[in-house]
Parts: sequence; C-alpha cells; structure tokens
Amino acid sequence: MENAQARPAAERYAFLGPAGTFTEAALLQVAPGSVHQPMPDVVTALDAVRRGEADRAVVPIENSVEGGVSATLDALTSGDPLVVVGEVLVEISFVLVARPGTRLEDVRYVATHPHAWAQCRGTLARLVPGVQHLPATSTAAGAALLVEHDGVEELGFEAALVAAHSAAATGLEVLAEGVEDRIGAVTRFVVVARPGVVPPRTGADKTTLLVHLPHDDAGALLTMLEQFAARGVNLSRIESRPIGDALGRYAFSIDADGHLADERVAATLIGLHRVCPFVLFLGSYPRADMLPTTVAAGTSDDAFAAAHAWVAGLRAGLDEA
Amino acid sequence: MENAQARPAAERYAFLGPAGTFTEAALLQVAPGSVHQPMPDVVTALDAVRRGEADRAVVPIENSVEGGVSATLDALTSGDPLVVVGEVLVEISFVLVARPGTRLEDVRYVATHPHAWAQCRGTLARLVPGVQHLPATSTAAGAALLVEHDGVEELGFEAALVAAHSAAATGLEVLAEGVEDRIGAVTRFVVVARPGVVPPRTGADKTTLLVHLPHDDAGALLTMLEQFAARGVNLSRIESRPIGDALGRYAFSIDADGHLADERVAATLIGLHRVCPFVLFLGSYPRADMLPTTVAAGTSDDAFAAAHAWVAGLRAGLDEA
Amino acid sequence: MENAQARPAAERYAFLGPAGTFTEAALLQVAPGSVHQPMPDVVTALDAVRRGEADRAVVPIENSVEGGVSATLDALTSGDPLVVVGEVLVEISFVLVARPGTRLEDVRYVATHPHAWAQCRGTLARLVPGVQHLPATSTAAGAALLVEHDGVEELGFEAALVAAHSAAATGLEVLAEGVEDRIGAVTRFVVVARPGVVPPRTGADKTTLLVHLPHDDAGALLTMLEQFAARGVNLSRIESRPIGDALGRYAFSIDADGHLADERVAATLIGLHRVCPFVLFLGSYPRADMLPTTVAAGTSDDAFAAAHAWVAGLRAGLDEA
Amino acid sequence: MENAQARPAAERYAFLGPAGTFTEAALLQVAPGSVHQPMPDVVTALDAVRRGEADRAVVPIENSVEGGVSATLDALTSGDPLVVVGEVLVEISFVLVARPGTRLEDVRYVATHPHAWAQCRGTLARLVPGVQHLPATSTAAGAALLVEHDGVEELGFEAALVAAHSAAATGLEVLAEGVEDRIGAVTRFVVVARPGVVPPRTGADKTTLLVHLPHDDAGALLTMLEQFAARGVNLSRIESRPIGDALGRYAFSIDADGHLADERVAATLIGLHRVCPFVLFLGSYPRADMLPTTVAAGTSDDAFAAAHAWVAGLRAGLDEA
Repeated sequence: MENAQARPAAERYAFLGPAGTFTEAALLQVAPGSVHQPMPDVVTALDAVRRGEADRAVVPIENSVEGGVSATLDALTSGDPLVVVGEVLVEISFVLVARPGTRLEDVRYVATHPHAWAQCRGTLARLVPGVQHLPATSTAAGAALLVEHDGVEELGFEAALVAAHSAAATGLEVLAEGVEDRIGAVTRFVVVARPGVVPPRTGADKTTLLVHLPHDDAGALLTMLEQFAARGVNLSRIESRPIGDALGRYAFSIDADGHLADERVAATLIGLHRVCPFVLFLGSYPRADMLPTTVAAGTSDDAFAAAHAWVAGLRAGLDEA
Repeated sequence: MENAQARPAAERYAFLGPAGTFTEAALLQVAPGSVHQPMPDVVTALDAVRRGEADRAVVPIENSVEGGVSATLDALTSGDPLVVVGEVLVEISFVLVARPGTRLEDVRYVATHPHAWAQCRGTLARLVPGVQHLPATSTAAGAALLVEHDGVEELGFEAALVAAHSAAATGLEVLAEGVEDRIGAVTRFVVVARPGVVPPRTGADKTTLLVHLPHDDAGALLTMLEQFAARGVNLSRIESRPIGDALGRYAFSIDADGHLADERVAATLIGLHRVCPFVLFLGSYPRADMLPTTVAAGTSDDAFAAAHAWVAGLRAGLDEA
Repeated sequence: MENAQARPAAERYAFLGPAGTFTEAALLQVAPGSVHQPMPDVVTALDAVRRGEADRAVVPIENSVEGGVSATLDALTSGDPLVVVGEVLVEISFVLVARPGTRLEDVRYVATHPHAWAQCRGTLARLVPGVQHLPATSTAAGAALLVEHDGVEELGFEAALVAAHSAAATGLEVLAEGVEDRIGAVTRFVVVARPGVVPPRTGADKTTLLVHLPHDDAGALLTMLEQFAARGVNLSRIESRPIGDALGRYAFSIDADGHLADERVAATLIGLHRVCPFVLFLGSYPRADMLPTTVAAGTSDDAFAAAHAWVAGLRAGLDEA
Repeated sequence: MENAQARPAAERYAFLGPAGTFTEAALLQVAPGSVHQPMPDVVTALDAVRRGEADRAVVPIENSVEGGVSATLDALTSGDPLVVVGEVLVEISFVLVARPGTRLEDVRYVATHPHAWAQCRGTLARLVPGVQHLPATSTAAGAALLVEHDGVEELGFEAALVAAHSAAATGLEVLAEGVEDRIGAVTRFVVVARPGVVPPRTGADKTTLLVHLPHDDAGALLTMLEQFAARGVNLSRIESRPIGDALGRYAFSIDADGHLADERVAATLIGLHRVCPFVLFLGSYPRADMLPTTVAAGTSDDAFAAAHAWVAGLRAGLDEA
C-alpha cells in the first residue's frame, strides 16, 4: 500500500495537451485533483513518466479525435518499459464557441483541429451554410486565440470548435452544442505508469499485450490465437503492426479480457511465452465500462484448480516409479 | 524398485489365448518367464487383473488378427480402473503345418481362425489351387486337433494355419512359411495393470486417454484437439466411439506422444480436464518402436519452466497490489 | 429409377454368415426378399461384390459382436473401389436356446462365439451359477449342432447363445431371453456396392471418407479437420489407421454428416482434395436413425448459392479490367 | 485499356495536403502528371472521389507521420462505396530547412507537425542542444511561413522540419538531412477510386476487406480466421474496430495476400460471406513491394481446378440417381 507520508504532494499526470483537449477530459475523470502536465505529443507524455518527471500519463489509444493512436501503441512498446494501469472512455461531443455577441450567422471561418472538423463538418454545414475550416494544432488552440484577441479581423476566424467539457472554461459564448455528426461516439484513453504495480483484479478487467509471430504463414496467426482460445480468453482488440526488422514479420497489439491474476490469463501468457519469440506484458487493469468478463465453462479459477489437482494426483505415482 | 522378497513368485500374465496365438507371441516378448494364463476373450483377461487373479494382461489393441480390438478399448474403460503400462509390436507371419508325411498337394482343407484365413487366402490359393477353409476358434485350435487325432478322416482337414512363432511348439511339420498375403504386417498389443504405477519416462513414450466431448457440433472436436495442438502434443491414434448414453455424444480414445512426466502432456491434461466433461488417464508407457518423441519448439520442459518463471515474475507484483 | 425388366432376378446380397448371425439380421432389415449369400469373412463378402458374384454386401462396421470391423475398414479401401450405399442398426439381444425338454438348471456348457459370450457372461452366471463357455465359430454354429445331434453327450454342451432374431428359426426351445449384460446395445452395419450410384439425398445422410495426412506433426490433424469445420460439417466417426508405407503416417476413416449433394460437403471434399495427399470417397447414404442433419448458420445450400453469387458479382468486374 | 480520347484531361488526384506532405510524395510516385488536389483531411479527400470531383485519392493507411490512419479506415467503409486500387510506400526522411544564411547554431525553435517532431526529436537535440518545438498544422506549413516572412522575429522560429522530397521545392536552405531518429521507416498509402474496376492480377497482390463478427466469444475470431487458413490465405494486416452499434461487436479490417482472381481468395470470400454477418470487399491491387505471394501446397488455381473436377466427377453420378 502506498504511504501517504511518502507522497504528500498530488500525483503528476502528463497528458496529450493542451488544456481543453479530450485527453484532458479523460484525465479529469481519472484524477481531477492531480497536477496536470500538458505535453505536445504522446511520446513526450510517455517519456515524462519514463524519466520520473510525471507519475502517470493519460494518452489516447483508440479512435482518437486528435490523433496519437499509432504513436501510443509504438511509444508504449519502445524505450524503457511502461504499463497500462487504467482506461477511460470519453464521449466525443463538440461545442461551437465564439466571443460574446457573435451570432451564428456571422460565422464564416471556424478554427479547430482537422480531426475535429472532420467529425462536425456535416452538422456545421447545415447550421451555417458555406462555413469554412481554419486548421489549428488542437481544439483548444483556436479558442485560446479567440480569447486573447479582441479584434476578429486579426484572426481570420469568428468561432472555434471545442470539446464539450472545456467550453465553460474558455469563457466564450456557446453558439451551438452537440454539433458532432455522429452522436454517441466514444474515444478510449489509457493511464500509463512505470512497471511494478498491477491494479487489483475486479472481475471486469483487460490485459494488454504485444506479441511477435515467428513467421508469416497462413497458420502462424491461428497458432498464436489458439493459445487464447484454448483457455477461453476473448480478445477485445487486435492490431497487427509490421515489426520493421524484416519483411513479413508482424507484432500484434492485443487487449484480452481478464486479469493477470486470472488463471486462464496466466495460462495463456505461459503458452504465448513458449510459442512466440517475444511477448510483452503491458498491464492488467479495470475496464472502463465495468462489464464483468464472461467466464466460459471450464475456464474459472476453480476449474483450473480442479484440473491442476487432478494432474497432480496422477503425477504423484511418478515419484514412486 | 520392486522388492524381490516381496514378490518371490513369477508374475502372472493373463492373455488372449490359447497358447500359440499372436497374443502369446507378444507376451513372450514382454515377460517370457512369467506365469501364462490363457483367457478365452479380452474381457476375461482384463477382469482377471481387476480381481487380482493376474498381475498383468496382454491384449490386442490395434489391427488384431484374432479380433478383440473394440472389446479391448471398451473393456479398458468400463469396470474398475486399469492402466496401460507397455506396448508390444508383433510381426504377423503365418506358417502352414500338417501331420508328418502330409504333402502340400494333399491339402484340401485348412483349419484356422477366420481372420487368419483372410490374411493368407491369396497365397494359399496359389500354393494349393482349390484349397478351402474350415473355421476354428483360434489359430492354435486347428493345430491342436491335428496333433490329437491320428486319422485325418475324422477331422475333415489336412493342415492348419498357425502363427509363425508357435509352429515349432505344435510338433507338426511345416509345409510352407510366410504365407501371409501382406508381408511385414504388425499388430500392436498392450500390457495392462491395476493403477498405481506409471513406468518412468524414456523420451519415447505414449499416453493413452479416453475423452468425452460435451456436444457434437462441428467445432467440438476441434476445441478438444486444440488442447493438444496448443502444447505441441501429437496424436498417433484417435478413434471416436459413441458414448451410448445419448444420441450424438462421442468418446475419443487417443494415444498421444509423450509421458505424464512431460510438462506439455501435463498441461494438455489440465486443459482437457477443464473443457471436457470426462477425461480418463489410461497410462503413460514406453513406445514399442522406441522412436524418441519429436519435441516442437517451445514445448520442452525447459520452455515450460521458463514461461512459468516469467509469469510468476509478473504475478509477484500482484501480491503487493 | 431401376428398370424392373432389366433386373428380373432378386438382388444377391453377400453377408458375414452363416445364417443366424447379427449380420443376417441387418440384411433382413435391408433386403428381406433378396438372395442371401453367407460368407465366412468380411473380405470374402466384399470380394464377391467386386467380382460381380454378389450385387451388394452387408458387413459390420462398428461395435460388432462377431468381429470384422477393422477388417471391413481395411477391406473397403484396398482392392477395386467399393462404396457404401446404406447403413443398418441392429439391436444386440441374445437368447439362450436348447433342445426341447432341457431345463435351465440342466445347462452346464453354452456354445457360442466368444464375443457373444463376453456380452452375456454376467447375466448367465446369475441365471445358471457355474455355467461355462464352449467357443463356436459363430452364434449360429452352436445352435446348428444342437439341432443336428440328438444325444447331448456327443456335443459336450446343453445350450447355445444365439441372436434374438434367429431363435425361432433354430426350432430350439427358448430358455431365457434378453440375456445380454448391457441392454440396448446396437451394432452398425453397412451395405456395400460397386461404385456408380449414390443414393439420393434425404436430408439425414452420412458421407464416408478415407483421408491421408501428409505428415504427423501436431497441427496436421487440425489442418485436415479445419476443412470440415470451415464448412460446418460435423463428424460422427473418426478413426486413425497407420498407412503402413512409412512410420508416422496416418489415414483417417471418417463418417461426416451430410451428402455429396450438399454444397457444404462438396466444398469440404474440394478442400480435402487440395490439402491431403489422398482422399477416397466411400459413399453418401441415408442415416439408419433418420435424424436430419443439423445445418449450422451459413452452411445451407442457399447460403452457398448466395455467397457464390456475391463473389461472381465482384469478379464480373475482372473481365473488364 | 483506357481510351485516350475518352479522357483527354489528366486525372484528378485528391490527397491529404498541403503540397509538401509525405502524402504528396506518395502521389508523385503514383501519378506525377496528374492534377493534384490537396485536401485538409482524409474524409474530405475521399468524399471528393465519391462526389466525382476527383478521380482518385491518395491517403495514408498505416504508420502515418501526419495522422489520418483510423480516419482512413473508417472513412473508406462509411458512405458510398470506394475501393482501393493501389498502394505506395514512402520512406520517411526529414530535412531541417531555414532561410538562407541561417546557421544550425542559430536555431532555437523548429516549426513542424507534432508527429514529425516526435520522429526527429532525439537527433535534433543532439545537433542543436536546447532546440524547441513550435507546432504547425503540417510539415509544409512551417516552411511556407519561413518563405513568406523575411523577419524571423515575427515568426518566433528559425527553422522548419520538412519531408525530404519537398525540401528543394521550398527554396529554403538545408541545414541537416536525414534527421529522423529511426532510419528506414516507411509509411503506407493507398490509392482509392469509385468501385467498378479491379486492377489485374500480378501475382503480388493484396485484397482489403472489412468483416464483422457475429458475436464476441473466444472462438468467433478463430472461426473467421479459419476461413482464410483453410484456403492457405495469409494476412498481412488485421485491426479490430468496435462496430459501434452494440457492445462487444467488432469489425476487422484485413489485408490478405492474393487477388480476387485467385481461386483461394474467391473461396475465402465465399466462406466469409457465409459465416460473417457482413463482408465488404475493398479491392484487390498490386503490392507496393512487388513481393510475389507465397502459394502454399494445394492452394494454387490448378489445385482448385483439380479438386473441383474431382468432385464434379463424383457428383456426375448424382444426376442419374
């Protein structure tokens, strides 16, 4: 257990910044009272943890609005080891903001990150016919410029598209809410730490791995996946990535249902370690959606214990032989 | 090690008799100095072991000339438990014998077991055109009658077809050797004992199992076999048998390469115990052909030990969490 | 449809004889009005069909009382081609018969085939304490001797154990019915013909195959079985058999659910032909139990037709490229 | 073949712009003489093709420096159908440029896209200790500003990091070449068109698919992949993506080796169409690396033709039944 006296200060969280991004929204869910350290990119955020300048990092891992997903997968697995200790889901909802007094019909240019623009373009075109995009380095950046400048002429845009959670903090006026084209979209973020601590099993957990295949024939992927199937472990994410050291060799980034403390997950890891040239354990942590893992028949800890006991009984005879 | 004082008497071996059968040839390979107890059928031979009236039994398990294979598989797995502790291969070669003075051209009828006849018919037809079969209950039975009677008229046959190894013991004259149609055929026998002792691992071993499938859909057999494949354990024999208690449910009689003492075999058993409603361990024993088991990459005991150690290291962190 | 004028005579059926065996019971179910040709063994019965001396043969294929199963599997697949055109299930039930006037308590010896004895021993021992077995070459043979001789002294036995269906035909008196130890046991027989005609699809069919594996590594069997699983075809029987031409190579004798006319079976055969060095089609025929095949989602003929049409549509573009 | 008269004008290629990006480098490889239409994001580029405003689009699909990969996968599969007709590999190499007269030691701030910065940070820190990043919306944007302004004070940065192929076009001076931290990194781009034409088979092809799994149990992914394995079709990329319409349902974006014209690919598509609730064919096209597909034993067009002919022969008998 962590000693309160040993860590009197708030924990330091690096995140893909600046303030106002969806990654900050994720961070606010996880550790609202922590010291927030905005970073320009995922690699910098993770390196801050590696060097001990931050205690943890929050970075996007899937379906990100502002990018960073491939970078996250690669940055996690190169350099000093890191582990995932949690995940957060953030609903992706956008708000159109402007300086007080601006009317919707006054808007001709909207500053925002290109990915944000892509997700709201259809709705904005209906709201403000003829509206155009002015790229910004983040959703927060455009709003910041609107606040700093009082003369619209200098800026070349009248409104900014920002993450819903950050609208109030900008001090700007909301022209339209929920302007995303696809309602209900969600982005997944992970909380990353230095190795050493695995969050306790909750019964609704994920385990993240990186696995190399030894060769690329049609059976190699099946052979690897059979290690999961033989123990009833389901995958919720799999992505192949070229290893880069030779043609035709692949690494697989995998999220599996279950926790290192589950016997079926441990048995799968043992199997993977035997048949794959490289296996990296990247953490077991509670699922953000808290959906309990479905435990297939014969894959509970009890089933493993009973099977081990049976074989141990059979093998007892061996010592006397 | 067995104590000579505790068992001063020779071991008693029940076998599928009578004397002169191929099963006796198998027994002579395994335990020539034992007390031989001929039995009329496989079930009786196995029950003699179950009741302690014999120490071991030798019975055919595959490709038998005189039958008993299905009976052996079923008899092994019903009733009090038994285990296989060894296997023997016997070359199937036949000799045509007759009373002294009989010439090949005198032979019109040959007494022997129908399976023996079936395996020599072609050769005999070439040697003695028009020769006919007179069924006997075993290969030895016909020869015994020839010895007992001195008047051929009473018998209705002039020659007997016997196992090559038993020809000399009959005291009859050999008219033709190697009369089997297929040269080099081999039958497999097993040595069966009461449970408790598993022969030591030799590196060239087999493990015999009976496994039930829970259901009969197209994937159930694959699911069961994946437990073997996931640990690189090869099968040298598999036979489905209807369980009999319900339609569409199957048991599988399996010989797998390797020994209970092999980690990959133990891990396979653990997996089978979890996913199958019933698993019966029927013994690990040296292969008759002494061919060392091929150990696939990542399936050696060392590979298992390294994988276990790795996962144990990862789990060490759990205790502190 | 067969032309009555072209085949005026009754069909000739070879079977594993003599009259009175369970194989004859199977034959009586299939073709009661046919010419019955008893044969001393399975090979002779099948060869009679090969030579055109019989039109069809009925032989045991599974769980036989009087043997012949391995012989059947091997004899079907060596020599000129044959196909299975039907199967029959026969309930295995035994009756104890004796000459009129014999009482149960008079019986000291029972003549019958050893496998029959093995299946009734327990019940007989309770009915007639101390009763003993006298081997006969078939269940019918002992009864025949009882009929022929009127002096029990000459025979050395007082009763015979015969197949239930044949008891009346012996003309002997029934001492006890249903004396088998295991009630409800069933043996399976097949009807074999020369190739050329496949019985029409009924929706409750089996297809019998012999398949060779190219090598014996742990994945070869799975690779072969995936051809079935990928098309949702279930197996009701699988038996490995050493090919015999080289160590470690196996043939698999397989009964699969479905008919050659089913698209999923045809697709499986195409797959097997590609990946296995040898595939022998041994017939599609109605199941004896008439249980309709379960057709998994996506494996109906309609699903195949829809999938073929879709790919044909995609490929239409290729011709213009 | 395309008719020169029917299309007198150069083809119009939309791409992830602006000029100077790595996507433009990909476009220059594919269609140097085409009309280049820079687009602010992947969705806009693809929609330009959908609406007929561009003939084709070049967008990043894997390992992109400037993002857009997830966007590309999603944008390809939502909206009106599109197909991939080619792929291009671009070596990722960066150059540090500045206004003439600037020395390396003068540089304190470098403007570039954050992903580009992330890939060169280490090298730049060694070359110019203390150097800092100023984010730009693309690698090209920073260089453009340097060209437009002659007073460095106004800009706040002295140098820009640009794609190697675009350095000369900027008119700026090269301060350092090959400043990427990882030498030899490659990004993959695809050429996208409206459906209707599939590039001819070359023997070194890829086929891109989107496949839904019906459920998320541990076997569903294996079941889907068996359709590939059963025909010896290898995967070079697989990525799971939540479908979004219900919890626990996944789509898989897949690149498979081979071409729609290959029988093994067509057979795989037929299998997928049967067992998966949704399969989207996204094109067959030549591999950028021109590596011929390895054709496993039994998976050539000839092997398929022979297998089809064999089964057709067996089925010929059915018509007469």
